[in-house]
Amino acid sequence: MRIINLQEIKHILRTLDVQAAIEEGFAAYSSGKTVVPPVGELLFEDPPGDVHIKYGYLKGDDYYVIKVASGFYRNSERNLPSGNGLMLLFCQKTGTLLSILLDEGYLTDVRTAIAGAIAAKYLAPPRIDRIGIMGTGVQARLQLHYLLPVTGCRQVLAWGRSPEKLDRYRDDMEQEGFDIDTTLDADEIGSSCNLIVTATASTHPLLWARQIRVGTHITAVGADSAHKQELDPAILQRADVVVADSISQCRERGEIAHALRAGLVDAERLRELGQVIGKSALGRSSDHQITVADLTGVAVQDIQIAKAVFEAGGDSEH
Amino acid sequence: MRIINLQEIKHILRTLDVQAAIEEGFAAYSSGKTVVPPVGELLFEDPPGDVHIKYGYLKGDDYYVIKVASGFYRNSERNLPSGNGLMLLFCQKTGTLLSILLDEGYLTDVRTAIAGAIAAKYLAPPRIDRIGIMGTGVQARLQLHYLLPVTGCRQVLAWGRSPEKLDRYRDDMEQEGFDIDTTLDADEIGSSCNLIVTATASTHPLLWARQIRVGTHITAVGADSAHKQELDPAILQRADVVVADSISQCRERGEIAHALRAGLVDAERLRELGQVIGKSALGRSSDHQITVADLTGVAVQDIQIAKAVFEAGGDSEH
Repeated sequence: MRIINLQEIKHILRTLDVQAAIEEGFAAYSSGKTVVPPVGELLFEDPPGDVHIKYGYLKGDDYYVIKVASGFYRNSERNLPSGNGLMLLFCQKTGTLLSILLDEGYLTDVRTAIAGAIAAKYLAPPRIDRIGIMGTGVQARLQLHYLLPVTGCRQVLAWGRSPEKLDRYRDDMEQEGFDIDTTLDADEIGSSCNLIVTATASTHPLLWARQIRVGTHITAVGADSAHKQELDPAILQRADVVVADSISQCRERGEIAHALRAGLVDAERLRELGQVIGKSALGRSSDHQITVADLTGVAVQDIQIAKAVFEAGGDSEH
Repeated sequence: MRIINLQEIKHILRTLDVQAAIEEGFAAYSSGKTVVPPVGELLFEDPPGDVHIKYGYLKGDDYYVIKVASGFYRNSERNLPSGNGLMLLFCQKTGTLLSILLDEGYLTDVRTAIAGAIAAKYLAPPRIDRIGIMGTGVQARLQLHYLLPVTGCRQVLAWGRSPEKLDRYRDDMEQEGFDIDTTLDADEIGSSCNLIVTATASTHPLLWARQIRVGTHITAVGADSAHKQELDPAILQRADVVVADSISQCRERGEIAHALRAGLVDAERLRELGQVIGKSALGRSSDHQITVADLTGVAVQDIQIAKAVFEAGGDSEH
């Protein structure tokens, strides 16, 4: 049994292309080749916190994975990060524990960002003028980082509520080779960007349908629980293609859940990211379409990133 | 974060009285002071295996616990134990991982056996003539071991299907101070024992209502899933007191589920072990009653044993 700590995980990830593995995972999920039970959940009130247990396996694979990820949003008062967690990798033939990945929530952040990159790869317009990022936190950084190999565009407009956090975001992300402008006006994102990623903890819409230009792709990753929301549901009504990472999960949480409840989206029109990966004709078919990907996070992403890190980590021991 | 391996766990348990902690856990569970979501489950077909994720917390406590336990029943072909698993202990205020207990399923075995001892403590007749044990495996051994402090009776009749395994059971358990007779005839258990523990993986009844003497207590621990069964459901009909570790869980699995489906037990008559612990008048009220405890395993047992080992383990580091 191998314990891999956060520092080792970050080292392994620098030499590893996880995107292909996660694409395979989405495709397997959408073609019924995975077993992914409903998410286990523990909620705490004082201080507020939530814990999610995501688990499952690819049929016929060597492994199963159990992931624990927590968010305790007052941890900053104790100088602790709000997110935490670990992943457990077991042998599917014997139940033997093969590895504990002490990622402290980092692999969840990374696989979420890579899902955003995959959504952009399959759905963004061929010519991206400017990338719009909503949010200035960890996920807003990782989303942009993992777009590097997907697009040549380096022009970015970042939106946030805090000028200080926007300044830090600009400084940090310019070191990665992006040219970052910042704004406190969310309208500017819609009117000047045609690849938009929303990565906030907002509980009400930040982007409105009237703002969105034709040909835009939006990836919404912030709303991972039922009460969170970043998009005006009318954006999904207006969109030509609406993609979920998991249709069953997006019925319960995320932007699609809000749009379904408002009667603005027909469930029949929804497609899964894994279906688009398997058959690109299901994705964007013209430069003028508006596309939306709603990513709530599926265990198959955790399974695939844990496997990739474990298998690559074995080599690095020698 | 402290990792405690199986050898350390066994060492800690030798100096620790976990029974009181588990009694407290059952009492808290039955009085609504715990949060214990439904069990997470992964099932495998080839080779057959099952994985259970049990998790939860006591309200206002310092911890939450996530337990993984697996059974892969063809592991013996690979010279591996069928059971495996680990427990994770987190801080309830921050989500910080405090300890990984690499118990390989042992703590699940122990907390199950301790629940049997608690059931005997509260439900067995004051005078125990002979203890009947059905089964010869790990759980059949641990059940008897943890009865040591609960009763002065050392006369035991063990039933099993394999003479070789019965011989080994006798040899091993006589070293613990018991006087062990063995039998291949299940009828003998019912006719000569008044504290009976069934700890097999049977899928059909082993004990029948006509065999049971008045004044007998039976603890059934083998049937932890819906298809397993050790008792004739008519035993539960005949019993004066029927106790579940968790009524909600016993509606789905275990002996009570079979008896409810057969219409032989009125759900209104069921009591929880935690209620009996809190108010012993709910348990046995005469020497002539037949009592049955159906134990399917509740996360609160895992929570309490993990906490006890973690807190005691801190001292042993110095």
